[in-house]
Amino acid sequence: MDTWSFRLDGYDGAETVTNGNRFLIGNGYFGFRGTMDEWGKAEFAAVNLAGVYDQNGDKWREPVNAPNGLFVKLTAASIEMVLGKAKEKEHYQMIDFRHGIHHRDTLFDKVRIKSTRFASMAEPNLLCSRIEFSFEADLDAEIMSGIDTDIWDINGPHLFEFKFKRRPYLSAICHTGELLIPVTVSQAVTYDFDCEEEIKVLDNGVYRLTRFPAKAGQTYVLEVYAAVCTALDDVFSIQRGESICEKAKMLGYNRLLKSHQAAWDKIWKNSAVELVGDDEASRAMNASLYHLHSISPRHAKDLSIPARGLSGQTYKGAIFWDSEIFLLPFFAYTEPELAKTLLNYRIKTLPGARKKAAEYGYRGAFYPWESQEGGNEGCTDYNVIDVFTHRPVRTYFRDKQIHISGDIVYALWQYFIITGDIYFIRDGGAEVILECARFYLSRAHRRLDNGKIEFLDIIGPDEYHERVNNNAFTVQMAAFCFSCVCDLKGIFAMFQPGFFKTLLDKLDYHEDLALLEEIYPDVKPDFKENEVIEQFDGYFALEDCTLSDVRSRLLDEREYWGTNQGVASQTQIIKQADVISMMALFPELFSDETVRKNWLYYEPRTEHGSSLSACMYALTACRIRRPDLAYQLFLKTASIDLNGGGKHWAGEIYIGGTHPAANGGAWMIAVLGFAGLVVDSAGQIFLKPSLPAQIKKLRFPLVLNGKRKVVTVTHEGWEVEEG
Amino acid sequence: MDTWSFRLDGYDGAETVTNGNRFLIGNGYFGFRGTMDEWGKAEFAAVNLAGVYDQNGDKWREPVNAPNGLFVKLTAASIEMVLGKAKEKEHYQMIDFRHGIHHRDTLFDKVRIKSTRFASMAEPNLLCSRIEFSFEADLDAEIMSGIDTDIWDINGPHLFEFKFKRRPYLSAICHTGELLIPVTVSQAVTYDFDCEEEIKVLDNGVYRLTRFPAKAGQTYVLEVYAAVCTALDDVFSIQRGESICEKAKMLGYNRLLKSHQAAWDKIWKNSAVELVGDDEASRAMNASLYHLHSISPRHAKDLSIPARGLSGQTYKGAIFWDSEIFLLPFFAYTEPELAKTLLNYRIKTLPGARKKAAEYGYRGAFYPWESQEGGNEGCTDYNVIDVFTHRPVRTYFRDKQIHISGDIVYALWQYFIITGDIYFIRDGGAEVILECARFYLSRAHRRLDNGKIEFLDIIGPDEYHERVNNNAFTVQMAAFCFSCVCDLKGIFAMFQPGFFKTLLDKLDYHEDLALLEEIYPDVKPDFKENEVIEQFDGYFALEDCTLSDVRSRLLDEREYWGTNQGVASQTQIIKQADVISMMALFPELFSDETVRKNWLYYEPRTEHGSSLSACMYALTACRIRRPDLAYQLFLKTASIDLNGGGKHWAGEIYIGGTHPAANGGAWMIAVLGFAGLVVDSAGQIFLKPSLPAQIKKLRFPLVLNGKRKVVTVTHEGWEVEEG
Repeated sequence: MDTWSFRLDGYDGAETVTNGNRFLIGNGYFGFRGTMDEWGKAEFAAVNLAGVYDQNGDKWREPVNAPNGLFVKLTAASIEMVLGKAKEKEHYQMIDFRHGIHHRDTLFDKVRIKSTRFASMAEPNLLCSRIEFSFEADLDAEIMSGIDTDIWDINGPHLFEFKFKRRPYLSAICHTGELLIPVTVSQAVTYDFDCEEEIKVLDNGVYRLTRFPAKAGQTYVLEVYAAVCTALDDVFSIQRGESICEKAKMLGYNRLLKSHQAAWDKIWKNSAVELVGDDEASRAMNASLYHLHSISPRHAKDLSIPARGLSGQTYKGAIFWDSEIFLLPFFAYTEPELAKTLLNYRIKTLPGARKKAAEYGYRGAFYPWESQEGGNEGCTDYNVIDVFTHRPVRTYFRDKQIHISGDIVYALWQYFIITGDIYFIRDGGAEVILECARFYLSRAHRRLDNGKIEFLDIIGPDEYHERVNNNAFTVQMAAFCFSCVCDLKGIFAMFQPGFFKTLLDKLDYHEDLALLEEIYPDVKPDFKENEVIEQFDGYFALEDCTLSDVRSRLLDEREYWGTNQGVASQTQIIKQADVISMMALFPELFSDETVRKNWLYYEPRTEHGSSLSACMYALTACRIRRPDLAYQLFLKTASIDLNGGGKHWAGEIYIGGTHPAANGGAWMIAVLGFAGLVVDSAGQIFLKPSLPAQIKKLRFPLVLNGKRKVVTVTHEGWEVEEG
Repeated sequence: MDTWSFRLDGYDGAETVTNGNRFLIGNGYFGFRGTMDEWGKAEFAAVNLAGVYDQNGDKWREPVNAPNGLFVKLTAASIEMVLGKAKEKEHYQMIDFRHGIHHRDTLFDKVRIKSTRFASMAEPNLLCSRIEFSFEADLDAEIMSGIDTDIWDINGPHLFEFKFKRRPYLSAICHTGELLIPVTVSQAVTYDFDCEEEIKVLDNGVYRLTRFPAKAGQTYVLEVYAAVCTALDDVFSIQRGESICEKAKMLGYNRLLKSHQAAWDKIWKNSAVELVGDDEASRAMNASLYHLHSISPRHAKDLSIPARGLSGQTYKGAIFWDSEIFLLPFFAYTEPELAKTLLNYRIKTLPGARKKAAEYGYRGAFYPWESQEGGNEGCTDYNVIDVFTHRPVRTYFRDKQIHISGDIVYALWQYFIITGDIYFIRDGGAEVILECARFYLSRAHRRLDNGKIEFLDIIGPDEYHERVNNNAFTVQMAAFCFSCVCDLKGIFAMFQPGFFKTLLDKLDYHEDLALLEEIYPDVKPDFKENEVIEQFDGYFALEDCTLSDVRSRLLDEREYWGTNQGVASQTQIIKQADVISMMALFPELFSDETVRKNWLYYEPRTEHGSSLSACMYALTACRIRRPDLAYQLFLKTASIDLNGGGKHWAGEIYIGGTHPAANGGAWMIAVLGFAGLVVDSAGQIFLKPSLPAQIKKLRFPLVLNGKRKVVTVTHEGWEVEEG
């Protein structure tokens, strides 16, 4: 088995959406769905742009898809060679994980189309493809190549007032509807054969019609370079795309491919995880990290990764806690600059979080549940459509899922521990931590008669139980936030005594700090060692039934399980790891026996209805010496985008796409679970391996405090090499 | 117009349920629905028992209907003379409000059936009827009279192991399923003609078949005496019903009727409200008070009145806040012993309220939202059926409608002010007040950073908005509760210094009192004089649309408007008076201008989806000198059971029946609104009339501090006569 690629033979129209995700290529600037060269919006072709959002009317705000500059369609003997329309005789689609190259090879009646495609890791704006047309008969051929502007949108259209240029290269120039952000796509081609060329501006784009008499046994090659630019780039001009095309055309496909591959090789050097002896696990691991790398914003300084990556407009292209809890560890340990980019996004969007807190009558920073650019809250009050009434369902993710601010603090602190980057904390991180803590101070209540500090009317990670009190996970996140403030005070007292006082002055924080220091010891989840922790007040009093009981009550398979009326809501069945997530993130707070008891209690009651769930159960399974259980969850997590699995619907809303959090979770299971990597607050490495039998050897690089190390774990022992 | 009766001519089968309520008779021991003598459960005939509850399996617990001892059916020439089956030529049904007598007169083909019926006000266990059969031709006649045990139940059956006796009188003896409470029905008859009699025990009861050859032009009279007894009576034996029948038979219908009428005359002497010059209003007023009197537990010392009176099993026969807020003023001012009986029910059920508070993790007394005997909470977590999925809907009336405890304290205090009965307060009332206040202390939170005292996650009177924070009505009720505790302390310091300390000792209340006295000044609804008060935190941010907007969104007319997903829940449309109820109950706290502004804001946003709503708006309309508006609301309120109006469905659940709260509300509008009666804490009367133009003179008796007074209000002035 080639663990570095995934190939699917044959064509099945029902798999079109899934394959678009499975075979996605990207470079963090955009994602290009795994579709055929000749496909359009009907087949969900999309060039999904990172960080460019638009709202059309009162529809959901979502990321913008750019016009498709790689559109190429062959017509031979008046038959359009479009997969799914013309009958194929042979077909395969393949993705090369090592270098992010998409392959397709289709034999139609008398014509073969073979193409490769990549989103350049060396040039963020550039997409390249190389297409070979081979003929088994003499046929009149016409290639239509150009920029397809009639694109797939869920809540579009988003691009308006198209202008087209024919030369020097084809260009489409337009802008978004809400913020008027210019978007340009330019396209250049090279032929290895003689042909006539006619340029046409159509309703749906600008195209080049290339006609030639194709000869039997002959192969004709077209190389396409498409540049997408937006005014969010560091440098922008209407002509910039043309310059990129010109440079690309000069260098040619092969040289562009080489620099692209070199960039990928560098990326893998610091991140590839070897799982020796287990090809299936290896391929899933490679696929997971491939997907993460393809959507990482290396071109930016302060951008984060949407919950469905760059695979489309699902979940409004928004940044969720996924980035901090499931992606951050991978980047912090392998490519800290990227971790910093993700966290800088939160620092930059602090004003949005302050605004949101104020909107709800609180102080400090309440980060968006679904964050778009500038910290705009993309989450609406209605996130699900009722399958029975087709009405929007009032959900409370936006207003009640307050653990988000703590999740961000948790990630900042992780980054700090792993990189030792105190300047990052000083120059932005500390302010976020203080403001998040302030939010929890203002969100907390003290019960009048017994003095207990409570977090009321909240939602934990398990979204099927809305508006609960004292969700343990959330309480712990708030407590952690408070502890970070106390730690910050201590650290800066040593490091830069004046700084912290200045910051407190600036934020008018002295009274808050006094309050925080007073109450901090009283804020903690309510639990007894070695017993099952109640997920929230009253959870144990809910109906204790099985997952299949709950499933059997569904009247429609697309029904939403949550809200107070959903089938899970009044039972102990939970959507995803909640108490167990707390134990995975704060292992030092819980004894092995506590983790074991809770794992055994909660796992059978968990739907794993989110791709964030399995990873947390796997990490804790390693903790309780059950790598066999962790291994199954690892495979499930790491294979999600290979299998095209995960939930596709929440009520009537499509939620498909790739699963970056599961991808990051796969890395966490391997490194933090199987290898048992722990870094203490002094930056010292410890390993407590819990290696599944299937994996003979586990080997991975990491960067700790700026130093590269390579860790090797076997069933016999482990070692850490420097450099 | 006869303002003391209501007559409906003609028969309309669609009105059967409504007429059962309209023409109800009762004496507080039972309610007998306004059905035909020959009807059974298909026509919703029922003898609804006060205070006897039963649960069948896991169905809703509800009051028990007794077997119908007044069943009489005529068969003439082999045709069953059953209204709705045999064709009627003439028919009317009438209720006499002054003496609680039900009349029916039906002319079938060749046969007329004319009957009168009453539930004796002089003998709680006794039902009497007198039936005349007149014939226009010679016909073979058979009268089937007896005890029908196949009775109407919503969640039954409730009665089991029937035993039948044939002599000395027909008797059915059975017991309830849950608590095994014996229930007996005995029946005796007298004829004014000769006949053969055969007694038969059937599956559905024990019957007497009376055969005679009827002659044209002749009238045959049957008098029926039925006694219903249960083991909840002060004295109970299997034979007691037989003794009652024997005595009744001895006295005869006419003498029984006389003592019944005398009892009614006495009742009206202290309660009738004259609305001179307005027959429509007068009749509605009389009907309202008639219904209240018919269901008042004069036979008991500690019983209260269910929300749908004794008209059936709707709302589980439970006691709601209706009793304290809408019924209590009427009784306290006209028949204080009865007010005491209602309040004694709450004193007696204090242990149930303590248990409920503890169940939710609180201290003190959290009274049931739907209270059954012993303070059993009849309200389930699921009170509505979803019309789309037919699933029970999780509602939060039980757990979040915490104003109930304050409502009870409010009523206790009202009773105390009106009657001056300090011993009642000492011997039970004070403990309830202290425990309710303790509940609010334990239910309150202090926001950590700004010190604000909050009542979180509650439901106010407007049930369409669930789980809100700081509902103004509820906060004011809690504040009132606290103020009563402070007043109690002051009053007993003067009256019986040792008592209060002993009570505090007994309840271990010293720390709570200190806390209460500390925080009491900070507990009050958040509002500015002369501005609209926000019903709860965030209410003003909800969609501000019209009632017809909301109505137009219904997909099914029986849809429930509340829960987070209901059509009203995310809008400013409310079910019933909420802020306005607070202003009606605490008039002294708000300026006229504040009331005016709030009335004009909230009234158009109110569905009046509860019969409790119009009364509160009417009272406040009088306050703001708009008796014209109040008058319309008075008619609506007072006529509700005449018109058979009100909502009949909540989701898929039938909620029809009579409306005691509206009946009591009608009295409140007349006396507290039109006459503007105010009694200050010294027991001094003040009148601020706001008499509608339609009413020339308003005259009513009341009892204040044990002294009878008669108040007369005209457009020229008012006077109060003693005695």
